[in-house]
Amino acid sequence: MKNVIHAKCVKCGKVYEAVPNLTNCECGGILDIVYDYDYIKKNLTKEKLAARPNTMWRYRELLPVEETTPDTPLRVGWSPLYEADRLGEKLGVKKLWIKDDGQNPTASLKDRASAMAVAKAKEAGAKIIACSSTGNAASSLAGNAAAAGLRTFIFVPERAPKGKVAQLMTFGANVISVQGNYEETFELSKKAIEKWGWYNRNAAINPYLSEGKKTVSLEIAEQLGWKMPDYLAISVGDGCTIAGVWKGLKDLHAIGFIDKLPRLISAQAEGCHPINRAIAENKPWEPMEENTLADSIAVGVPRNADKALMAIRESNGIVVNVTDEEIMAAQKLLGTTCGVFGEPAGVTGTAGLKKLCEQGVIGKNDTVVSVVTGNGLKDVANAIKFCGEPMKLPNDLDALVAEIDRRGLKTE
Amino acid sequence: MKNVIHAKCVKCGKVYEAVPNLTNCECGGILDIVYDYDYIKKNLTKEKLAARPNTMWRYRELLPVEETTPDTPLRVGWSPLYEADRLGEKLGVKKLWIKDDGQNPTASLKDRASAMAVAKAKEAGAKIIACSSTGNAASSLAGNAAAAGLRTFIFVPERAPKGKVAQLMTFGANVISVQGNYEETFELSKKAIEKWGWYNRNAAINPYLSEGKKTVSLEIAEQLGWKMPDYLAISVGDGCTIAGVWKGLKDLHAIGFIDKLPRLISAQAEGCHPINRAIAENKPWEPMEENTLADSIAVGVPRNADKALMAIRESNGIVVNVTDEEIMAAQKLLGTTCGVFGEPAGVTGTAGLKKLCEQGVIGKNDTVVSVVTGNGLKDVANAIKFCGEPMKLPNDLDALVAEIDRRGLKTE
Repeated sequence: MKNVIHAKCVKCGKVYEAVPNLTNCECGGILDIVYDYDYIKKNLTKEKLAARPNTMWRYRELLPVEETTPDTPLRVGWSPLYEADRLGEKLGVKKLWIKDDGQNPTASLKDRASAMAVAKAKEAGAKIIACSSTGNAASSLAGNAAAAGLRTFIFVPERAPKGKVAQLMTFGANVISVQGNYEETFELSKKAIEKWGWYNRNAAINPYLSEGKKTVSLEIAEQLGWKMPDYLAISVGDGCTIAGVWKGLKDLHAIGFIDKLPRLISAQAEGCHPINRAIAENKPWEPMEENTLADSIAVGVPRNADKALMAIRESNGIVVNVTDEEIMAAQKLLGTTCGVFGEPAGVTGTAGLKKLCEQGVIGKNDTVVSVVTGNGLKDVANAIKFCGEPMKLPNDLDALVAEIDRRGLKTE
Repeated sequence: MKNVIHAKCVKCGKVYEAVPNLTNCECGGILDIVYDYDYIKKNLTKEKLAARPNTMWRYRELLPVEETTPDTPLRVGWSPLYEADRLGEKLGVKKLWIKDDGQNPTASLKDRASAMAVAKAKEAGAKIIACSSTGNAASSLAGNAAAAGLRTFIFVPERAPKGKVAQLMTFGANVISVQGNYEETFELSKKAIEKWGWYNRNAAINPYLSEGKKTVSLEIAEQLGWKMPDYLAISVGDGCTIAGVWKGLKDLHAIGFIDKLPRLISAQAEGCHPINRAIAENKPWEPMEENTLADSIAVGVPRNADKALMAIRESNGIVVNVTDEEIMAAQKLLGTTCGVFGEPAGVTGTAGLKKLCEQGVIGKNDTVVSVVTGNGLKDVANAIKFCGEPMKLPNDLDALVAEIDRRGLKTE
């Protein structure tokens, strides 16, 4: 790769050649991909970008793939960035945009990482990709791999919801339901990956995945005409996504495409916020229980904590924790004001932003982008619990008139 | 509207001025929007199109809206058209493309009609839109209206699934659950719409909606570089969608953008196919029972039958009925070969195509586009029933090796 210098451990600094099947540093640290920004500056212009296909692969010069590696087949990325004036007004900020990343092929931001995994697996000559996950990582891998003609082995703990397993099976994944908890599931997947040499799609091990995720911030910058907002709010679980977001922003700054770096808002669930706690108390992170309905960010032992903490600190970021009630209120608020339906973990960034506005930390002079990371159709059960009851009436216009009066609804 | 001449009844031929709140002809027939193709030819070129935003509104000159009417806010349309070589090979056709319209903001093709309804409601100066539906029409209306700052009243029968009601409530719709069947629900909505003068989003009454839906075929043509396939396969319920698809193709032919019209493949469920039966027996359509799990096309009394029958006949189309098992097999086939997860009604077009290939009606010399009209996440329950069981194993590599052997799975 002409645009990549090497991979470097974020813990000990050791460097590695950027081969396709890179894993962790021998010290256990996670690797970071280091680019040749001079080379990229010479080869990428804003004008060139404008004519490219509307997928994450438009940013090829900023991505760790060979020039000859084909784009992956599904339309991943270039999700819509909506001007959310009504919501911005309600929150009391100067200007607000919502980036709806639930509008990806398998309905979450994770498609960006899985498409990258598929591209790198092809470079490695692999025919099978494996991971252990019950959530968006698994479904995005299964879908993107199927489209590219690669097979998958996906390990899920036995408690995995049937609906999620059904999605994996529909994409033709070989699904192994492991009798045990997540740790045991992960262990069996590790042993199997070692035995058969499958390509490893695991954000804690594979340093390319957060490079895929960073395309979300590359897009935000381009969609805003390279004029950056003051803040960028996003939900945080494992830490890989916020690390990717920051990497994308730093890349653009390094090649001179943007001249301002937004401050990150890291939103976690009150019931599980090990990364935010580490920032707030300025201490190393420690494991936490996983007490939140926002399952995609219920990560008590974040595997990308190092990169995430660095990103939040470097950006002079803000951390905020929200209750499940605040998360579900944000889901409804996004639905009613923007027509955007996000899953609980997906709207946690917006819930955090709302809280910071109420606390006066963010206000009428601030511009903000809030990223919705997953589609509400992924978890209808929680929406049902929180959305309230419809009017229940007979086929009788008088009854309808009375009920509308009683509720004080406007009919014009 | 400079591009529109008038609206014309498809039954009696009476013409009407194309005002924003048009409904049916006084004879009960459905109206069709008639364009001034000379005007459009002068004002629209393929080059102009290439520079437009990637939404359905890029086709503004071919749409029945005022020049000053703003684009609706959600990113509706320009869904991906995938080259489906592996699936095409399996089916035995020369070339196959899949248009995944489940990649719309509320996850179905109906977003195209609802965005049009929102645009016309704005022209009419309406602040409230109403409809009766439990399905994709309702959720797409609720989402698109919320994004545009319009309010909605949506009437659903009491049997409506809670998940669908939750989606409507999340978008802030006023939902009325009517104690009774669909007919009673429809009646109450009609009375309420008359009483309060709400804008009517009902594909059987509002002639603009199929004009929104036609953008799916405008896109297919543009995405194929204006070279049309031999066949276009799509699922049919009420009939509005296939009528819209045909209208779009005829529009493009009339302005000289395409020189060939594909033959339509109308796919219905074996358990409910009144439109296909009318074609097959060359008789007027008659109501049928609604015995299929593909709920979005379980329409025993199609309200757009006239337009649909005309479209199928004009295109020298083919009709094909598929069982629920064939539908669910097509869902899995699309998942495993294309990474596309469609709802049962959404994949019925592909199921029909598969059947026609097996019957030798369509074969190795034919090129086909198959449209997937809705996302599988809308109905996970049926996927669960049909997708099969995962491997259930302890955390034991030997047990995994044995199970993989037993199933004869390839591990490299």
